[in-house]
Amino acid sequence: MPIRLCGLRFRLDRFIIPSLIQGTERMNDWRSGGSYAGPIPFRLVSRDSRPDGSTLDINGIEIGGREVVVMAGPCAVESRDQLFATAGAVQACGARILRGGAFKPRTSPYSFRGLREEGLQLLAMAREEFGLPVVTEVMDTRQVEPVCEHADILQIGSRSMHNYPLLEEVGQCKKPVLMKRGMGATIEELLLAAEYVLNKGNDRVMFCERGIRTFETSTRNTLDLNAVPLLKRLSHLPVIVDPSHGTGHWWMVPAMSKAAVAVGADGLLVEVHCSPQEALSDGPQSLHPDRFAEMMQEIRAVARAVGREIPEVQPAITRPKDRAKTLNLSR
Amino acid sequence: MPIRLCGLRFRLDRFIIPSLIQGTERMNDWRSGGSYAGPIPFRLVSRDSRPDGSTLDINGIEIGGREVVVMAGPCAVESRDQLFATAGAVQACGARILRGGAFKPRTSPYSFRGLREEGLQLLAMAREEFGLPVVTEVMDTRQVEPVCEHADILQIGSRSMHNYPLLEEVGQCKKPVLMKRGMGATIEELLLAAEYVLNKGNDRVMFCERGIRTFETSTRNTLDLNAVPLLKRLSHLPVIVDPSHGTGHWWMVPAMSKAAVAVGADGLLVEVHCSPQEALSDGPQSLHPDRFAEMMQEIRAVARAVGREIPEVQPAITRPKDRAKTLNLSR
Amino acid sequence: MPIRLCGLRFRLDRFIIPSLIQGTERMNDWRSGGSYAGPIPFRLVSRDSRPDGSTLDINGIEIGGREVVVMAGPCAVESRDQLFATAGAVQACGARILRGGAFKPRTSPYSFRGLREEGLQLLAMAREEFGLPVVTEVMDTRQVEPVCEHADILQIGSRSMHNYPLLEEVGQCKKPVLMKRGMGATIEELLLAAEYVLNKGNDRVMFCERGIRTFETSTRNTLDLNAVPLLKRLSHLPVIVDPSHGTGHWWMVPAMSKAAVAVGADGLLVEVHCSPQEALSDGPQSLHPDRFAEMMQEIRAVARAVGREIPEVQPAITRPKDRAKTLNLSR
Amino acid sequence: MPIRLCGLRFRLDRFIIPSLIQGTERMNDWRSGGSYAGPIPFRLVSRDSRPDGSTLDINGIEIGGREVVVMAGPCAVESRDQLFATAGAVQACGARILRGGAFKPRTSPYSFRGLREEGLQLLAMAREEFGLPVVTEVMDTRQVEPVCEHADILQIGSRSMHNYPLLEEVGQCKKPVLMKRGMGATIEELLLAAEYVLNKGNDRVMFCERGIRTFETSTRNTLDLNAVPLLKRLSHLPVIVDPSHGTGHWWMVPAMSKAAVAVGADGLLVEVHCSPQEALSDGPQSLHPDRFAEMMQEIRAVARAVGREIPEVQPAITRPKDRAKTLNLSR
Repeated sequence: MPIRLCGLRFRLDRFIIPSLIQGTERMNDWRSGGSYAGPIPFRLVSRDSRPDGSTLDINGIEIGGREVVVMAGPCAVESRDQLFATAGAVQACGARILRGGAFKPRTSPYSFRGLREEGLQLLAMAREEFGLPVVTEVMDTRQVEPVCEHADILQIGSRSMHNYPLLEEVGQCKKPVLMKRGMGATIEELLLAAEYVLNKGNDRVMFCERGIRTFETSTRNTLDLNAVPLLKRLSHLPVIVDPSHGTGHWWMVPAMSKAAVAVGADGLLVEVHCSPQEALSDGPQSLHPDRFAEMMQEIRAVARAVGREIPEVQPAITRPKDRAKTLNLSR
Repeated sequence: MPIRLCGLRFRLDRFIIPSLIQGTERMNDWRSGGSYAGPIPFRLVSRDSRPDGSTLDINGIEIGGREVVVMAGPCAVESRDQLFATAGAVQACGARILRGGAFKPRTSPYSFRGLREEGLQLLAMAREEFGLPVVTEVMDTRQVEPVCEHADILQIGSRSMHNYPLLEEVGQCKKPVLMKRGMGATIEELLLAAEYVLNKGNDRVMFCERGIRTFETSTRNTLDLNAVPLLKRLSHLPVIVDPSHGTGHWWMVPAMSKAAVAVGADGLLVEVHCSPQEALSDGPQSLHPDRFAEMMQEIRAVARAVGREIPEVQPAITRPKDRAKTLNLSR
Repeated sequence: MPIRLCGLRFRLDRFIIPSLIQGTERMNDWRSGGSYAGPIPFRLVSRDSRPDGSTLDINGIEIGGREVVVMAGPCAVESRDQLFATAGAVQACGARILRGGAFKPRTSPYSFRGLREEGLQLLAMAREEFGLPVVTEVMDTRQVEPVCEHADILQIGSRSMHNYPLLEEVGQCKKPVLMKRGMGATIEELLLAAEYVLNKGNDRVMFCERGIRTFETSTRNTLDLNAVPLLKRLSHLPVIVDPSHGTGHWWMVPAMSKAAVAVGADGLLVEVHCSPQEALSDGPQSLHPDRFAEMMQEIRAVARAVGREIPEVQPAITRPKDRAKTLNLSR
Repeated sequence: MPIRLCGLRFRLDRFIIPSLIQGTERMNDWRSGGSYAGPIPFRLVSRDSRPDGSTLDINGIEIGGREVVVMAGPCAVESRDQLFATAGAVQACGARILRGGAFKPRTSPYSFRGLREEGLQLLAMAREEFGLPVVTEVMDTRQVEPVCEHADILQIGSRSMHNYPLLEEVGQCKKPVLMKRGMGATIEELLLAAEYVLNKGNDRVMFCERGIRTFETSTRNTLDLNAVPLLKRLSHLPVIVDPSHGTGHWWMVPAMSKAAVAVGADGLLVEVHCSPQEALSDGPQSLHPDRFAEMMQEIRAVARAVGREIPEVQPAITRPKDRAKTLNLSR
């Protein structure tokens, strides 16, 4: 959709946002941070439509509020033991939401592609056992219904951000949506992908920055933290950061998680595996629970420094059986 | 899928191909162009499996043979008049296959998204009228069946190359598949996307290079013609080039089409519109039929220079009513 | 320099680091963060050569120690008034080093290119007046000597990171070097650029991440904070972050500065201008002193949260005339 | 230099050209290819200043005319034998200009960096012996004078395109300049780099597209052939293509050379080495003379197809001693 502005044509996908944020009229008003000029092509997700920002309630957990919400768990659900050991461990450290893939998009058809329906069942059991809401990916319009049954948050993966039929399908259901940025997608395209969902009636969407593809090969992706203040300014929706995919290296995850909290992220999505060396996918970027525990302490301090919070874990856990689970982690 | 090679781990998506093509064992044998070492993760599409290359037969038109097959038509089917005027014009110039989008993936939900089922009907009518096979995009697993009914070639668009459920669905049908490279996808990911289709039983696949996303903003995309010799070397499947999306500027299309033919492409996919200024999508990159006619002469000469051919159009067209259609083009 | 590893050839500029950091031998030892295998092509800057890291002393200010050192000032030195007003303001907020360009590399030959020798003189005067060490860019081998006379730190700009004759020239002088990452340079190339300097005998080098060029156009560059933990792991040299060039938008600078401190940067390089709307270069990314003052409070809290510090400004400034200067800033 | 257009600010390095080439006023006039609106920041190199294009005369060889001029030779001058064997071979195949690096910019300080002054001497001897003009790189302002003594064309390498003091220095001498595009530079920056040279009085400049850095790792760079029609449209200066650096693989060079000729390049810059396996630099992308000979036949046919020419080599070579040299190539 090239649009006309002052007699010139601009491509929607590259030039609108620069125009918006470089509007000079009120640039002099440096305190307000300038303001936008011209038409906004993503009116439902635009901050103009809800200047105070929006929050999402996930079974009593508020995303977009004062708390920085940590979502953690394995890349893929591999077995009951693996899922429960990891879920118990991350909960004990203060994670509020459990992540885990049942349907896995894999670059090669010969890679492990998830336990699929069985994975959804295991997630439902873990949800019941630990009381943690569950976020899991949906890849196909035909999967939306079964995934909705078991998941609390539907994840649109990086490869699906441009899958418009899927976006419209999740726009028609009632579940919150975690929308990952495409690895080659601009911020403008990400905003418009969310607009597809809101346009169908579902306004419970949060963004997730997970790294973009650049010329740099030392890291799996380049985590674009610029995206956080930019999205917060342009849209009212909460923003999550995924430092696991954003780096590809588990030992970089704590540092980048601290950066994400400091920059203003509303939550983190972190891959943790009870035995990373044996993980069927994404082992090199998955944290061991012990390192995750340390990291939670570190980001808690950063959250406080920027006026946010990550609740302390209660010394006496209400569900003692969970505690036990964390003790016999396979290493 | 990180794989281990010599005790190191490599990510499938960035490092295998460089390893393959930089294998040094037979590098000294410079005449053969070196050869691969190590495991090949895309065995079905690999040239090793069919050293002489494969050809696809589309209603008697051979893709991957001596002829460079030109596919042309509008970005989107907009109306009977627009489609028929354009189809007649491109046929008169020597195009062998008609392109036209019925389902259009658009960055914004507010853009024109195609005539959908009605568009398919119009394509079927044009196919009947002009005797041209039709290539059109399929975006969703649920659309595969209806699109198969009317199309001769199923196009997997750039945004869908990573949509694995869709790839498996088209892998189970009998129609040829034109697989566009994702705008942010490596050659390795493109090869593996095709592997998904072949792995489900459909080996009638051709690749389409259509430009990748880079830092350069003067052109819509950066047409990566390196991809052509690389794909021809690594795989047995034919390779098509789309200079319209690869540049975004209609006036660059003829030059890049000549380059594509010279570099060894098996076909071109070109956007032509009988009235580009009025196009509902991609007008700036659509050729007017008059310019397309000139371009066909130019690429015919290049094809001959590299030992390929683009058949001359017969002075007496067998279906005189087609000819008439080209005369009253809206301008 | 392609090197051979296990019978395969790798290009130095893309594959060594991934190999190094994906070495699996000690991957199981998750606490240590894995370790490197194979030859290291940047032995002088490698952390292996100084496992405890190195610190630089700049007139008593330690870079790479506990303090996060803030360097601030205008993009370009424009006049005595502009420089002194800005210098006084940033000093009053806690900046420890004054930045300011005398020789400015500009994309267009018709842009303002700095006051050159006169700019150096003004920097020398400001240094005297405020007692702040000065960092300024050197662009040409022939400028090294005059710039050394007046500057405390020589800045190698993003466009000069690949200027090897210049790197060798600064390698032969005694001044500390702030080495900016090329906008299109990999981490590996950045490490090797520093190796050029150390190889000539000057080991007082610090890196500066300032954003890389990607497909995203909403921001001037994509600030790659992944670079910070990566450089800290691979090298013993301190790492500075430039959030001004890394974003291109002044209103994003405070958020990204907080992220940089949280991720472990040893310092910040921030553009501040006493009157951004009138700046001759980089106005849109320059902070007004008032906003800079607020930002200093914010990053001070983050520094404490990660075990670092940014010293409080003394209520009674020892040089009262500086204080006066901050009061009549042009707005 | 952000400029104001219609009340918005645009960064010079990303937005001017898209604005220029998307000017819609005369877009309807599809035959003329549209035309530019607004200020042009590179007025001396702009095609507007010389609508018929400019040609460069290099010792009687015309660049930018009907002939496609082939420049070939080794990456680096390594020895008299290597240089003379290669020079004789490329001349016998029809190359008109000899390339060879005396000063080599290398990513690592420990790589072979050229024979330097001795290399210049050898180039001067080869020039004398074979009667071929010589193109060689200049990396530093202090080298301009000595390089001018021996070279017929000064090459500004990819890493030096942003070295403005160097550009001004070559702008003040009388030698033709081959300006390579920076690996991370936009077309706009390339145009402005040439503007620096013309602005100092030297208008004998030609551009050289040599590949840009993208996420794709299968090839050393992504050869951006879009740049050729774009530069030809925006500027009057000739455009050369370097398929060796643009691919990194010698076996891709012939295909990409054909594409470059077809797309309208005025010349090629090709790495040929009499013994690629033993090359001290860029061996994997250097053609063996036998393959180069075949390639010359192939591109000659393509040149004819697009109305250009590459002169046939005379059966009786005027300098018989050259011929002898090509017979005892080391293999």
